[in-house]
Amino acid sequence: MTIALLTIGDEICIGQIVNTNAAWMAEMCSLEGWRVVAHSVVGDELSQIIDEFKRLLGLADTVLITGGLGPTHDDRTKTALLEFLEDKAVLHEPTLQHLKALFRRLGRDITERNATQAMLPSTCEVLQNDKGTAAGMWFTLKAQSKHNPSKRDKIMVSMPGVPYEMKHLMRDRVIPRLRDLSANDPVMRYTTLLTTGIAESTLADLIGDVDMILEGQELAFLPSSGGVKLRISVTAENRAKADEIVARIEERIRARAGRYVYGKDGDTYDALVGQLLTEHGLTIAVAESCTGGLLGAALTASRGASAYFLGGVQCYSNEAKMQFAGVKSGTLRQHGAVSEETALELASGIRERFQASIGVSITGIAGPDGGTPEKPVGTIWVAFADKNGAEAHKYNVPGDRTVNRERAVAAALQLIFKKVSGV
Amino acid sequence: MTIALLTIGDEICIGQIVNTNAAWMAEMCSLEGWRVVAHSVVGDELSQIIDEFKRLLGLADTVLITGGLGPTHDDRTKTALLEFLEDKAVLHEPTLQHLKALFRRLGRDITERNATQAMLPSTCEVLQNDKGTAAGMWFTLKAQSKHNPSKRDKIMVSMPGVPYEMKHLMRDRVIPRLRDLSANDPVMRYTTLLTTGIAESTLADLIGDVDMILEGQELAFLPSSGGVKLRISVTAENRAKADEIVARIEERIRARAGRYVYGKDGDTYDALVGQLLTEHGLTIAVAESCTGGLLGAALTASRGASAYFLGGVQCYSNEAKMQFAGVKSGTLRQHGAVSEETALELASGIRERFQASIGVSITGIAGPDGGTPEKPVGTIWVAFADKNGAEAHKYNVPGDRTVNRERAVAAALQLIFKKVSGV
Repeated sequence: MTIALLTIGDEICIGQIVNTNAAWMAEMCSLEGWRVVAHSVVGDELSQIIDEFKRLLGLADTVLITGGLGPTHDDRTKTALLEFLEDKAVLHEPTLQHLKALFRRLGRDITERNATQAMLPSTCEVLQNDKGTAAGMWFTLKAQSKHNPSKRDKIMVSMPGVPYEMKHLMRDRVIPRLRDLSANDPVMRYTTLLTTGIAESTLADLIGDVDMILEGQELAFLPSSGGVKLRISVTAENRAKADEIVARIEERIRARAGRYVYGKDGDTYDALVGQLLTEHGLTIAVAESCTGGLLGAALTASRGASAYFLGGVQCYSNEAKMQFAGVKSGTLRQHGAVSEETALELASGIRERFQASIGVSITGIAGPDGGTPEKPVGTIWVAFADKNGAEAHKYNVPGDRTVNRERAVAAALQLIFKKVSGV
Repeated sequence: MTIALLTIGDEICIGQIVNTNAAWMAEMCSLEGWRVVAHSVVGDELSQIIDEFKRLLGLADTVLITGGLGPTHDDRTKTALLEFLEDKAVLHEPTLQHLKALFRRLGRDITERNATQAMLPSTCEVLQNDKGTAAGMWFTLKAQSKHNPSKRDKIMVSMPGVPYEMKHLMRDRVIPRLRDLSANDPVMRYTTLLTTGIAESTLADLIGDVDMILEGQELAFLPSSGGVKLRISVTAENRAKADEIVARIEERIRARAGRYVYGKDGDTYDALVGQLLTEHGLTIAVAESCTGGLLGAALTASRGASAYFLGGVQCYSNEAKMQFAGVKSGTLRQHGAVSEETALELASGIRERFQASIGVSITGIAGPDGGTPEKPVGTIWVAFADKNGAEAHKYNVPGDRTVNRERAVAAALQLIFKKVSGV
């Protein structure tokens, strides 16, 4: 099955919010083995919306639409659907009852404006939205009918743009139905190998002639700040066959470049680090200056963090570095807050105070202010302390404040991973 | 000027990464007064890429393309441009020298694979990329020429997908040129008012008949987790005229709903809180349990945070709550870590230890584990302490671990804002 995603709304189009919905939906569909062929974003403009319905129905079997279902005048998706399908809105009694119940729970009467949300196209199957007021709408366009000249039935689904409402409808209503419809279709399966410490072109040379290992399937090189990702894409008649081919190709790539592979698919350094610490029965404490808590946040992003994360200190001021993490005033005076010496004392000090197996510290100049010729913006020290001693590493990161802080956290996670795994 | 954005790459199409580039570019263009009419995402498929060049050139004056410029076989943008424009690649000597210099700095020789990145379409103006190996390409398609039947010259620009390389090219090469080209065009200007504490439909009723206040311009209602945003969009012959109309409409809306407006445009609670604390000469310290450092990270996200943020403690374990933030063991035993009492002691304790004007604490059950019937997942306590005493508030948030932690931070920032501003 092929899928196209259509996001409707000026707020996405003009860049006020990031289109996380499309990424989430695309990922869900890809996990099901469906091929996402396009995303499209348009503003709240009726004729452009209708043009996109037509174009995307030409590209894909199923068009998943989000946004533009609110009760105010700038929401145009329903109008566009009615016009495109030459349909009319009729009262959908179960939706009206559902809306009334929702408002009752909030202790309010339903407004006239919200009641219009129960007026729905006569040809749609209504997908009840348990999390909000805008119902989902499922349209089946029969093959060789007016709006679908192709030889295969096509599906259009309209959902609200609020992420948790969309996710509810996708999970509980849309994906199960699409799964039934596509049970006998070929599937596309992906695996992504995560590498670090090697450049894209060097990795490509190391893997060599891709035609030799791919059996006609696909391999993509995806550079990112953490390292190059290798995505294997396989199309086959069913999931088991596809997974078998993926595994064979993965093995061949690992045979050539395995020493640079640190994980696969959704693995993240923070989850991998958490797993590693748990397996080794180690605990950790952090001392963060310029990152203000981001490393602790990363280490506690996954469930089960209490097995290894004891806590930390956000020692933004020099006083806090001394009082809570045991840095000597002489060290700060002589070397400054952003220095190898301070980073080492922070890591050892925090380890001792929390009685943790491992202490990690970050101190740096995130910018945009505070740089000097010797210590420009982007100078970051990360230190690691355990029972064998402490070591510190310096990084020069080139980004803005946000990027520099993220890079500092990534560097710290990689250092922990390397030290604990012994890789 | 109208703009269309085209993102090329399977990794975006299948949802492996979120299309933050498109949001950033759209925002930059909107700030310039240009109208972004569409975003499109396609995979690494030659004929589909070429189809999108054609379609988007029909929709907009300028098509900004990112992605697909790497040195490996799955990068197809250059090939697509050459085919679409019936052009051929020629060696661009300055780019080759630039590439050689880049590799020299890394202490390596340029590989054959990377040298191909200096082979560029003969008809493009090359935009030197100071941050990476893939040059930008600027194409001017003359009016009423083969690939541009319209009456206006059109622009296509191809840039790499790596965010900081794209941003460099946009800021330093593309936007200045487009600004020159569009100097005499009408502009579109936006202002967004941020409201909180009122539902979308109630707000719409409060503002009343929009035709009365809009002078034919546009107003959009944008619900989000922090509150409903009101976006005013105005088209006028120049920036000054547009800003004048925006200001008039803003005034009318504020006259009706001003008491729900807490900020505008890019204002975020963390920046507003930082500003407010700086203005009042107040300092702050935090004690974070389930958020693991996210509140500190938010309070230090903006430059100048050292004026108010002293630091904090990530007291994930009970021991850390007692040792570093002064919670009594009896309180933890009697009421538990997630309780009003613990939240209050954390806020007061951290305030005292850091000798800060304000102490703030968060303790809660982020999930997915750790819930009980009395304290389900999503139970969050936030406390605020200052010289007048301390208060705690309970929240029940309905999301997953990530969302619950974000909501807890948002609740804490709102509480600080309210208490300090006296609103």
